[in-house]
Amino acid sequence: MAVKFAARVGLLKASEIREILKVTVRPEIVSFAGGLPAPEVFPIEELKQVAVRVLDEAGGQALQYSTTEGFEPLRRQVAARMAARFAVDVGYEDVLITSGSQQALDLTGKLFLDAGDVVLCESPTYLAAISAFRAYQARFVEVPTDDDGMIIEELARILGTTERVKFIYVIPDFQNPTGRTWSLQRRRQFAALVQEYEVPVVEDNPYGELRFAGETLPAIKSFDSKGLVVYVGTFSKIFCPGLRIGWVAAAANFFEKFVLIKQGTDLHTSSLSQREIAKFLELYDLDAHVAKIVAVYRRRRDAMMAAMDAMFPAAVRHTCPEGGLFTWVELPAGYKAVELLRDCLKRDVAFVPGDAFFPNGRVENTLRLNYSNMPEERIREGIGRMAAAIKEYRRTEKERYGV
Amino acid sequence: MAVKFAARVGLLKASEIREILKVTVRPEIVSFAGGLPAPEVFPIEELKQVAVRVLDEAGGQALQYSTTEGFEPLRRQVAARMAARFAVDVGYEDVLITSGSQQALDLTGKLFLDAGDVVLCESPTYLAAISAFRAYQARFVEVPTDDDGMIIEELARILGTTERVKFIYVIPDFQNPTGRTWSLQRRRQFAALVQEYEVPVVEDNPYGELRFAGETLPAIKSFDSKGLVVYVGTFSKIFCPGLRIGWVAAAANFFEKFVLIKQGTDLHTSSLSQREIAKFLELYDLDAHVAKIVAVYRRRRDAMMAAMDAMFPAAVRHTCPEGGLFTWVELPAGYKAVELLRDCLKRDVAFVPGDAFFPNGRVENTLRLNYSNMPEERIREGIGRMAAAIKEYRRTEKERYGV
Repeated sequence: MAVKFAARVGLLKASEIREILKVTVRPEIVSFAGGLPAPEVFPIEELKQVAVRVLDEAGGQALQYSTTEGFEPLRRQVAARMAARFAVDVGYEDVLITSGSQQALDLTGKLFLDAGDVVLCESPTYLAAISAFRAYQARFVEVPTDDDGMIIEELARILGTTERVKFIYVIPDFQNPTGRTWSLQRRRQFAALVQEYEVPVVEDNPYGELRFAGETLPAIKSFDSKGLVVYVGTFSKIFCPGLRIGWVAAAANFFEKFVLIKQGTDLHTSSLSQREIAKFLELYDLDAHVAKIVAVYRRRRDAMMAAMDAMFPAAVRHTCPEGGLFTWVELPAGYKAVELLRDCLKRDVAFVPGDAFFPNGRVENTLRLNYSNMPEERIREGIGRMAAAIKEYRRTEKERYGV
Repeated sequence: MAVKFAARVGLLKASEIREILKVTVRPEIVSFAGGLPAPEVFPIEELKQVAVRVLDEAGGQALQYSTTEGFEPLRRQVAARMAARFAVDVGYEDVLITSGSQQALDLTGKLFLDAGDVVLCESPTYLAAISAFRAYQARFVEVPTDDDGMIIEELARILGTTERVKFIYVIPDFQNPTGRTWSLQRRRQFAALVQEYEVPVVEDNPYGELRFAGETLPAIKSFDSKGLVVYVGTFSKIFCPGLRIGWVAAAANFFEKFVLIKQGTDLHTSSLSQREIAKFLELYDLDAHVAKIVAVYRRRRDAMMAAMDAMFPAAVRHTCPEGGLFTWVELPAGYKAVELLRDCLKRDVAFVPGDAFFPNGRVENTLRLNYSNMPEERIREGIGRMAAAIKEYRRTEKERYGV
């Protein structure tokens, strides 16, 4: 007998982001590669208070096994927040607490996907969602996407001609990796189309509360009259990621299956962490806390935009996100971001090449930059190093090919 | 298009234990149905200290994203503990921290199982492991098991004649549900056989440190010279379950795949909880804490054994566990534990009928009792109620069938 892994194992490879992060622990490297929130705005003192309060008040119950669905007061707080912030009308009984939103994506894959099933996604899309769904041997069809979201005509064509579509995965607010936000009109058109086709949607919204400018738009889930939209949220970007608390909000027909799936996956999410966040929400003002984070990230985004505009060659384009953690850079055609990364690492600056965010085809001239995790001065320094590398890369290309 | 779930969803059903637990929240019910540790021995005061210390010392790092493998000091502490307690020689680099041992089982299923693959297990075996593996559409072959563990001749026969065996799942110490412990000889024979067949083993050891009597036996992993044994451990029963911290210890060939799988599943386990347990292990004496738990559970086991011996009819047999949380009761042939449960619920006492622990065939005359979660007086009261129900059941049977 020989040891044999499941077929899915052959499809998995180490995340490029994670591998790059390992190199970038050196303090001299300016890393735009990660997606880390700024630790200086984590509510450390408040969490100390909260931890003690929870143990004083709940005692052993906070440390005991608890229900798979999650801590009811927290589920109520989450439902209320979704209503207040994104016009989503769900009851607490639709909210399942998960171990971060990554688990919500994993459970979604586990719920819907057999080997060979199809996931429709934006092009590009979130790297770790690709990993989560690929583990269930999904195939991906990338839907052409512009600055306003998925292009509806393209989506209609794909829905009309593709077999085995199990769900559509989208990040309408400050998308990872592009920083783009779907327009209101596109959200409505999208919602109408999915109702027509009765195809489930996974709406992933980790960054929606981190808006620097413009008006908050209703979630796609708010237009969901048929219970087709699985909404995925998280406290990682508005509170802190280390506690690993996210959620799924889904109508009863999906919800009860999610609970069964989660039960076999990890029984339930940390009783203590759930109560800690619930207590924080009870004692402190999360809106005020989010406003603090937004102010910090806005300055950092502004610094990155200004530095790129000042120092990058005009032929290098970038998005200007209205919120979130990322901007997306398009190098001139023919440039290879992976090669540029090699040059950049020599200059002690890092980013994630765009390829990894396209589940199928290779798009070689794009890259993702994160601005949430370092002060403005360092952002300017890093963009300066990148600009030098880009110019050097161009010179080398000219020498190499005589262009 | 119609919404369609993955094929696995058709195989899942709500856990009977969980459903029963929902009925048994009524305080008048004496519930032997759960598997809950005693909350009165949770280290609440210590955890308050630890939570504040971790945030004081690590600050934002304790709340930030962290590596998939886990917090290195905790991984070292786990490896040291496995060596000291169960003679297992692993390095910290073999230890992956998981979100409870349930996640370790899920990741194991995800790593090894394609639809139709076979898992060999004890008969009966742990209910939630069945759920975890069934989600990957495994088939189960139950290996005949006696008081000393799997019967080696039967296992050899099954290994020699069964296609697609991916791994053997065992709980050698104070098994759930039977409370049985494998003998040293059986462990050695088992290890020799699996080395011969080169079949992976999942050794689940949540209760091993909770020994009331006799000598600790080496883990099967301690005989593993070929890197075939995946050892699964947890802090749930020796510390508290609410934090959801468990682990997998596996040799490099398995370990790197486990990390990849976990990365896509939930990125990593709570940074804060990992640091809290590590800090507890640094500041306090877990051995002394375990000794306290053992003293409490031993008294409760003694109370349950004595009450059963005094009040159950002689034809009702039970195991006498040397540790752990459970005992296994065998009713006379022809008795149906599910029917007895109905009678018992009328008398405000609950247990789990044995059927659920047999992944295939129906074994109707067995049941599992938990004694860890209530004081002795209440155990005696509950066993008294069960005894009355058993006698009543017997009388009804006689009337019904004239036996």
